[in-house]
Amino acid sequence: MEKINIEKKILRENDKYAFENILFLTERKKLCLNMISSPGSGKTTILARTINELKGKMKIGVIEGDIQTDIDAERIRATEAPVVQINTEGACHLSAPQISEALKTLPVDDLDLILIENVGNLVCPSAFALGESGKIAVLSVAEGDDKPAKYPGIFAKSKVLLLNKIDLLVGGHVEFDIERAKADARSLNKSLEIFSISAKTGEGMADWYDWLGKSVRETLTQP
Amino acid sequence: MEKINIEKKILRENDKYAFENILFLTERKKLCLNMISSPGSGKTTILARTINELKGKMKIGVIEGDIQTDIDAERIRATEAPVVQINTEGACHLSAPQISEALKTLPVDDLDLILIENVGNLVCPSAFALGESGKIAVLSVAEGDDKPAKYPGIFAKSKVLLLNKIDLLVGGHVEFDIERAKADARSLNKSLEIFSISAKTGEGMADWYDWLGKSVRETLTQP
Repeated sequence: MEKINIEKKILRENDKYAFENILFLTERKKLCLNMISSPGSGKTTILARTINELKGKMKIGVIEGDIQTDIDAERIRATEAPVVQINTEGACHLSAPQISEALKTLPVDDLDLILIENVGNLVCPSAFALGESGKIAVLSVAEGDDKPAKYPGIFAKSKVLLLNKIDLLVGGHVEFDIERAKADARSLNKSLEIFSISAKTGEGMADWYDWLGKSVRETLTQP
Repeated sequence: MEKINIEKKILRENDKYAFENILFLTERKKLCLNMISSPGSGKTTILARTINELKGKMKIGVIEGDIQTDIDAERIRATEAPVVQINTEGACHLSAPQISEALKTLPVDDLDLILIENVGNLVCPSAFALGESGKIAVLSVAEGDDKPAKYPGIFAKSKVLLLNKIDLLVGGHVEFDIERAKADARSLNKSLEIFSISAKTGEGMADWYDWLGKSVRETLTQP
């Protein structure tokens, strides 16, 4: 019981900052998406390919969350997109105060879209609002088609599910029932948009780019 | 600062139960291993294959930790090994009080080895002692060779690292520098034993079984 009250208090403190971040982003009509997945599902590869392929069409800034190292931020820097690295020093998720600081560093007014790469963890990051416009869940087919059923939280809360690494399905290198994963995820979240992609080969990425373009335009035209 | 103190208190409460579990297992000279990895790295497949291939040689009981569902426990039940399912109802790790309850349900005196499958999460479970004899980290090659550097906690604390899904390396379906991953993991933990395996094809599993056999014998002959 005590633990539950303590957790509520931490979340309440976090949510104050999350609310400030929402106000900051809404005033500037900026779309901000929070990408959540297990380690190794391909978040950084998706980000780098998205930035490179949308160059000249959409200005993207990135907030990179990692427990240690700036390996991911280095990969984003190679795309020449503005990037802020947050090292959580052991913590298993990004928090809203960290995003508040990062938003002060990014050239927000020059950007169309801010993408947050959360710490690799399918569980905890989904419980901490950052002030984002929406969450993007990433699941690679190497992780197994039972994951929406086993880790429902993030699939229930996301706007988009990116089913990544579909290149591994060719030749049956991994077994993954796409229809089962989609049905389980949609049973948790009727409005979930699902795109099957390979950030390695580029397959399926065009639909994801269309969704991003549409969402940026909707954010700009909001009253 | 307050958050840190609160976390210390929760960990202290957990550690009381962990210590009781250590006493319980040591009195009975039972080896108990806590398997930790991201979702989808293959923990359940490793467990099921290990139980099946060691039938008649080693009696294994399993404690299955999941946020929701008993999909994994069902897969273990198919091997006919005794299994206890713990549903954490949203929590991102198993805790020592849960293991204490599970040990009362398992036929511990009839077993040689107790394997705990923790919640799929490379971060949080490593911070919670369960009273286990040792931790086993699992990393699949589909997750990328940078993971020991990026998520050092579990690699620093484990007795064994199982590098799983090496069947995916044949034909270059995934890129993973085994030597880089091993070197990074060993730089965090000089005594770490590393076995490269495929729980799907069985490759490399014999060395893991030898290590289990040796560890069970060492536990039995401890003063």
